[in-house]
Amino acid sequence: MDDVVIRVVDKLPTLRDPILVEGLPGVGNVGKLAADYLRDQLKAKPLATIYSRFFPPQVYVNEEGIIRMVSNDLHFYRPSGSKARDVVILGGDYQGISPEGQYEITHRVLEFCRTLGVREVFTLAGFAQGHVVEEPRVLGAATSAERVEAMKKYGVVFSRNDPGGGLIGASGLFLGIGRLFGMEGVCLMGETSGYFVDPRSAQAILKVLVEVLNLQVDFTDLESKAREIDRIAQRIHDVEQHTGEPASAGGSGARDDLGYIG
Amino acid sequence: MDDVVIRVVDKLPTLRDPILVEGLPGVGNVGKLAADYLRDQLKAKPLATIYSRFFPPQVYVNEEGIIRMVSNDLHFYRPSGSKARDVVILGGDYQGISPEGQYEITHRVLEFCRTLGVREVFTLAGFAQGHVVEEPRVLGAATSAERVEAMKKYGVVFSRNDPGGGLIGASGLFLGIGRLFGMEGVCLMGETSGYFVDPRSAQAILKVLVEVLNLQVDFTDLESKAREIDRIAQRIHDVEQHTGEPASAGGSGARDDLGYIG
Amino acid sequence: MDDVVIRVVDKLPTLRDPILVEGLPGVGNVGKLAADYLRDQLKAKPLATIYSRFFPPQVYVNEEGIIRMVSNDLHFYRPSGSKARDVVILGGDYQGISPEGQYEITHRVLEFCRTLGVREVFTLAGFAQGHVVEEPRVLGAATSAERVEAMKKYGVVFSRNDPGGGLIGASGLFLGIGRLFGMEGVCLMGETSGYFVDPRSAQAILKVLVEVLNLQVDFTDLESKAREIDRIAQRIHDVEQHTGEPASAGGSGARDDLGYIG
Amino acid sequence: MDDVVIRVVDKLPTLRDPILVEGLPGVGNVGKLAADYLRDQLKAKPLATIYSRFFPPQVYVNEEGIIRMVSNDLHFYRPSGSKARDVVILGGDYQGISPEGQYEITHRVLEFCRTLGVREVFTLAGFAQGHVVEEPRVLGAATSAERVEAMKKYGVVFSRNDPGGGLIGASGLFLGIGRLFGMEGVCLMGETSGYFVDPRSAQAILKVLVEVLNLQVDFTDLESKAREIDRIAQRIHDVEQHTGEPASAGGSGARDDLGYIG
Repeated sequence: MDDVVIRVVDKLPTLRDPILVEGLPGVGNVGKLAADYLRDQLKAKPLATIYSRFFPPQVYVNEEGIIRMVSNDLHFYRPSGSKARDVVILGGDYQGISPEGQYEITHRVLEFCRTLGVREVFTLAGFAQGHVVEEPRVLGAATSAERVEAMKKYGVVFSRNDPGGGLIGASGLFLGIGRLFGMEGVCLMGETSGYFVDPRSAQAILKVLVEVLNLQVDFTDLESKAREIDRIAQRIHDVEQHTGEPASAGGSGARDDLGYIG
Repeated sequence: MDDVVIRVVDKLPTLRDPILVEGLPGVGNVGKLAADYLRDQLKAKPLATIYSRFFPPQVYVNEEGIIRMVSNDLHFYRPSGSKARDVVILGGDYQGISPEGQYEITHRVLEFCRTLGVREVFTLAGFAQGHVVEEPRVLGAATSAERVEAMKKYGVVFSRNDPGGGLIGASGLFLGIGRLFGMEGVCLMGETSGYFVDPRSAQAILKVLVEVLNLQVDFTDLESKAREIDRIAQRIHDVEQHTGEPASAGGSGARDDLGYIG
Repeated sequence: MDDVVIRVVDKLPTLRDPILVEGLPGVGNVGKLAADYLRDQLKAKPLATIYSRFFPPQVYVNEEGIIRMVSNDLHFYRPSGSKARDVVILGGDYQGISPEGQYEITHRVLEFCRTLGVREVFTLAGFAQGHVVEEPRVLGAATSAERVEAMKKYGVVFSRNDPGGGLIGASGLFLGIGRLFGMEGVCLMGETSGYFVDPRSAQAILKVLVEVLNLQVDFTDLESKAREIDRIAQRIHDVEQHTGEPASAGGSGARDDLGYIG
Repeated sequence: MDDVVIRVVDKLPTLRDPILVEGLPGVGNVGKLAADYLRDQLKAKPLATIYSRFFPPQVYVNEEGIIRMVSNDLHFYRPSGSKARDVVILGGDYQGISPEGQYEITHRVLEFCRTLGVREVFTLAGFAQGHVVEEPRVLGAATSAERVEAMKKYGVVFSRNDPGGGLIGASGLFLGIGRLFGMEGVCLMGETSGYFVDPRSAQAILKVLVEVLNLQVDFTDLESKAREIDRIAQRIHDVEQHTGEPASAGGSGARDDLGYIG
């Protein structure tokens, strides 16, 4: 079996100077939430499914009892307007589960995307602050000084100290290996606590992204998810205040709910 | 050394639209118990032995002092009747011990089975409920809505919530990778406690399978194994009730016996 | 870099129906002690050095300050007498440090040995009993009933229950993979406590081996090593009896000595 | 993706009998400190960047917000004088993170260096003594007796017992695998406590190296770094004396500073 198997869903579309947007599971699930929301709102079409021996040996079963193997997936969106650029969105169930797997999957996906004409990459991620963040800023990193300057205009913060240890995982590698392919790229990181899934942080980076890419996206559903998380977090806070202990084993089950949202 | 080495025992038989039945070690050893019992009852013939560097580096020594390397094995059975389909049974000592090994072994075995003409796969497994199950149900997962409907007629339960996290290991991968080979498939999961080997659960899934495949199997021996486990479980229960502690270090040795059965 | 690199020391000798004897580090270091002692006593000549990325990334430095990379090594011995068979001895610093590495190294060494004409393998190992063994028996396992019977004549014990879990590591794999190359083989296991290096156990298996292979070996040095271990073990026993605690941190340092012997 | 990707920065220079100097992260960061300092002082020019799937899946972000993937790097220096030999310096962020990765990266870098004409290697490392070392000695290991003798003239100590367990990691492998390429080599190990980064130890080995290679290097900056570490270590010592506990969580933050220096 190939290390990475890319199955094209239909025949390969001819894309117009496409931009790759990556959002895989990670800190606060911020990147995945954002990419999945973008895909759903744009009604992006399935392009290819990616299987790999570097993913867990696992299949999911849906509510009808039908299985699918864990995967990453590419969708594409063609905006109307003759000058608009197409968007390719990468999402999925997992990042590669070993360092070598991360390198290999990223390399293979970028190699495939190059055949689609991709020369520019946006990666989406969360940045764990270790405390609750009311109004998440969007931090940035990029492959060139020009990209840094361009992103500052959209309010992206390039902090001297953050992220101190650099970027670990797909959001970093897609930029790093992308450079080996001659691609330029930007990583957008939404501040988040790091303790639970964070649709508000996802919303923050997505708002920047849609402005940069000149896309139309309705944020109602994502805002509503964010409020749901707020309510649950508040409940946990209340229970813990009241009992003086973590709510995990408590009657409310609120903490458990957090894992299921998003 | 190849990652996976498949040694054909004799010359390859020409099979009639064969169905692959997989049953490897796992939860409650349910899948393996069922596949081994089916093989023995059908007096299926050895077809191929599978070695892999993804198995533990181990040989077994039998009572005569003769070694054999750990392996998986394929046997085949030709039912009488001109319209009957042949059955290929996969069993063995281990699943691959790394995620990559699981993918690779599954892929190579399916590739080999495709050359035998296999287009349909049944995988057998246990489903851990975490408590003793008196009358194990048979839960299902499948590759298509048609298979789901077909299986419901045999009493297979497709539960909205189980298995929640999907299927891990060979029983899932043989369906997932099977789809990449264009094969259809069904996973039959016998409910089990998850605490010891469970011939009763094996019996439950096997009864469904033989009905689906229209095979004749005598369940006397498996029922007798199931009763033996019942007796041992009862003894452990009694000892623990009496002493107020786990029986593991007790004089009866009953708990130890559980591991050796099946 | 190749997974396994085999460097022939000189030009390849033409060997007379050679027998491979394997003794690598393992339980009680019994196999390695025996193989190294045999090599030294026979003044066997260097044949090839084996490097592998499956060994630890390590070099040793000798007393003169000169380095050598960790390796396995093949030596060969030509007995006098026109009908005698040559002996190839495999020893070394480590077994492969991953399961896959164990398979690969074994496979590559056997492949190389086949080109030398090897059709028969003896593997040497310790068998941990978990308690001190005054007069270690030699347990056996073999690739065929004929070998089992032949070995019984030399006092080798084929026990119905030992080794229960089979053989793990090189001593098992050299027989198991050897069979894939059509080689016959025997594993000789010396009983040992499993707590420290055991030259007495090594002596026991070597005495069988030299009789089987019709070699002349003086056991004086090995016996003297065995007595040294006996003395140290006795000292530890005395200290522990006296103080009521393990001697490891004691003033005698006796327990530490054990690791350095052999 | 290749296991190891070597990107030549410009076109390959033609080098004059070049010597490779390796200094990667390790004990006390001694080797890396020395190699980086040498590179900076000599104003060595970038030659090639080395990426590998055996490094962590990580990118760094600099103060301007621009990313670079973790790597090793080769620089070269051409001394003036028609008879002088060129120097190639290997430094970087990480050693390979698995044993196999260490072997593979070392092999590939040496293979590349051979095409540059490298026939001689110096590896730089720290040797952990477990206690503070006021005047670090330089210990040595080499590929031949001639090199050992040659190094003794420069005050390098070849100790009968150190390093007892040999050399682990790049500094050992570059010599060991270097021999497979027919290269000669020397490892210079600076004594260090092993508890923090140690510019003084780096200075000790570098002073030997520049004398051997007949290079001109100003040690002012390295000496100043060493004094800074001395001051911090003294502060930690004082705090711990005073409070009777480790200073790690103390108000001074001195212990934290140690990690950032160098």
